[in-house]
Amino acid sequence: MGRRNLEAEDIVRYEEDGPKVVLLDQRRLPDEEVDLECRTVDELVVAIRELAIRGAPAIGVAAAYGLALAAARGEDVDAAAAALAGSRPTAVNLTWALAEMREEPTPAHARRLHQEEVGRCRRMAAHAAELFGPRSRALTHCNAGGLATGGLLAHVWVDETRPLLQGSRLTAWELETAGIPHAVIVDSAAASLMAAGEVDCVVTGADRIAANGDTANKIGTYSLAVLASHHELPFYVVAPTSTIDLDTPTGADIPIEERSGAELTTRFAARNPAFDVTPAALITAIVTEHGVREPVAS
Amino acid sequence: MGRRNLEAEDIVRYEEDGPKVVLLDQRRLPDEEVDLECRTVDELVVAIRELAIRGAPAIGVAAAYGLALAAARGEDVDAAAAALAGSRPTAVNLTWALAEMREEPTPAHARRLHQEEVGRCRRMAAHAAELFGPRSRALTHCNAGGLATGGLLAHVWVDETRPLLQGSRLTAWELETAGIPHAVIVDSAAASLMAAGEVDCVVTGADRIAANGDTANKIGTYSLAVLASHHELPFYVVAPTSTIDLDTPTGADIPIEERSGAELTTRFAARNPAFDVTPAALITAIVTEHGVREPVAS
Repeated sequence: MGRRNLEAEDIVRYEEDGPKVVLLDQRRLPDEEVDLECRTVDELVVAIRELAIRGAPAIGVAAAYGLALAAARGEDVDAAAAALAGSRPTAVNLTWALAEMREEPTPAHARRLHQEEVGRCRRMAAHAAELFGPRSRALTHCNAGGLATGGLLAHVWVDETRPLLQGSRLTAWELETAGIPHAVIVDSAAASLMAAGEVDCVVTGADRIAANGDTANKIGTYSLAVLASHHELPFYVVAPTSTIDLDTPTGADIPIEERSGAELTTRFAARNPAFDVTPAALITAIVTEHGVREPVAS
Repeated sequence: MGRRNLEAEDIVRYEEDGPKVVLLDQRRLPDEEVDLECRTVDELVVAIRELAIRGAPAIGVAAAYGLALAAARGEDVDAAAAALAGSRPTAVNLTWALAEMREEPTPAHARRLHQEEVGRCRRMAAHAAELFGPRSRALTHCNAGGLATGGLLAHVWVDETRPLLQGSRLTAWELETAGIPHAVIVDSAAASLMAAGEVDCVVTGADRIAANGDTANKIGTYSLAVLASHHELPFYVVAPTSTIDLDTPTGADIPIEERSGAELTTRFAARNPAFDVTPAALITAIVTEHGVREPVAS
């Protein structure tokens, strides 16, 4: 695939003809770019739970379109909101988007939220690019929105991100599309690359940021924060303000989704927490659409 | 499969009828227990390089049988030793076993080395069991010989060990066979289990221990050592003295095997170092067949 820009409506959109919510099925990337059509809220809930669409801002937008779909179909909007809110427990964007939509559950309102979220992500990426400094070699985990739009990165080390390989499927694909040099590594290789001086900073996204700055993100993020601290490297969280949840006092209050062990192995017992919590003290800076903030005064 | 003991000759043996070196093909575990017959040194070199047999002590023993095979077939023993020594660069046991065999490259001598190595591993496991304390919950990476024979562990967290999944294929299978409770996790989940107080100690093997105590082991081991230190947990290396290389002064002198990126992804660029080096300062104790030693005086 050549170098190009992915547009916001390529990821998720609402079509009146149907009506339906149409998603780029992220489970089939990078091998195939295939749309998934959700004609009921139930179908959309399954799509979110099974990660056809993922990433905190994107699932918030998808839920907004879902509420518009419920209203258009004459479904019970309250029941639809409850089902969508329960599809994944950790990201707060679901709750936020559903609350925003409640007064006016229309496609036009959902599209406005979508465009606002895209604008936030663009401004956030611009702030992050300033922070990284020229020619940085960043290491990332899972899939942080806007990393591929930064433009200033000399190289990105892409944690493959087990068990579902968002790094080697989605992030590597986005970086390739954007023409940014990159190499996939196993998640456990990050430490030795840091020790060898091949990493300048760590950059991740966030699924929920508590009021005190503690941050939940893909399992393995906390591990990288400890390793970055040991190697005296900056650890940046890049996430729009829609992921900040002032109603959650600390990381200990964030619900952590436990997914099926079958994502790792069907042969033996397995534990499969999907997220971990990084304490604010290990985060050098949080980058939102409003700029750069240090969660703990240095 | 029921609970049972795997005998040394199940893993690797020499058969005069052929003659041939017969390996349990570890690439096909845990789904199938299939023998692989190597009738030439070249076939054995390929088997070692492609990980049909793996783990530092086991590949040393396999190389010893290989030299006996070369002599029995009238092959050039020096050329056979060079080919076997070059099959994998990081484990020192290959060099050690080949040097031991040079004077008397016979099946009887290789079997004696094999039995001695089995005895060392048994004594090492007994020392390790004393160290762990009753009812420990250990976390392990890759496949450490003797872990399944300890008997005292209440629970083992098994890092799946990307990219080749030695943990979720081999270690989980050995623990199941030995009847020890265990659960597989993604490698990057170790940190959050430590933070949650669910890990009492970390136990790994070693491919080569330098004279100063720095230790090369499967990629991800150094990461665990840093994480254990951050969470104030003991980090133990369990390995027979055949993995200690007094001719290698420090970890910086250990050659690190870079394997093909295709083990991670064939779609994108990848870096795939197979090992990393843990500095002696992060190792609480090294357990050999002779007992327990602290590499750095505390």
